[in-house]
Amino acid sequence: MSDITLTPAPPYYAVIFTSIRNEGDYGYEDMAMRMLKLAAGQAGFLGVESAREGLGITVSYWTDLQAVAHWKADVAHIEAQRLGREQWYAAYRVRIARVEREYGF
Amino acid sequence: MSDITLTPAPPYYAVIFTSIRNEGDYGYEDMAMRMLKLAAGQAGFLGVESAREGLGITVSYWTDLQAVAHWKADVAHIEAQRLGREQWYAAYRVRIARVEREYGF
Repeated sequence: MSDITLTPAPPYYAVIFTSIRNEGDYGYEDMAMRMLKLAAGQAGFLGVESAREGLGITVSYWTDLQAVAHWKADVAHIEAQRLGREQWYAAYRVRIARVEREYGF
Repeated sequence: MSDITLTPAPPYYAVIFTSIRNEGDYGYEDMAMRMLKLAAGQAGFLGVESAREGLGITVSYWTDLQAVAHWKADVAHIEAQRLGREQWYAAYRVRIARVEREYGF
């Protein structure tokens, strides 16, 4: 289970990745774990929150757009994106958003 | 299971609500359903995506900040927010973000 990410004061960026999986694993869990570790080592990475309940939602947080662009262009990540489109996901949506306000308890 | 929301071309707004529930229902499921219906009837509502797997993530989409503010100030929603803090959630975070780019398949 992932935790609520402790993010700094806004502004920062959120990448909202919403997906519907195909049946079967086909190396997905392995790759998801590798991508999580790889993302966590990237410059500008702030944290990630994830849940799947039929629909999967993964929100990763980044300091700025440049960090988001670097992560998107990472060679191993590009390969994962290709496999995602070809094998793992029936559909997905990526939304890049600038967090302007945050509160909670 | 909720579907991937078909959102219009950016910009629009995302409200990322991340939460950890306390044990027990205490009217939560009922209220969650009522809030979903109420949100869907609000001006500027574009859709909602939701999943819980220990951590709960609900992302609602709105045309603009004014629509987000109206929803936050809705009387029934304010009561739900109070009950959320007092009963249902061990912790939560609300992030208001401007979606700048979107892609997928």
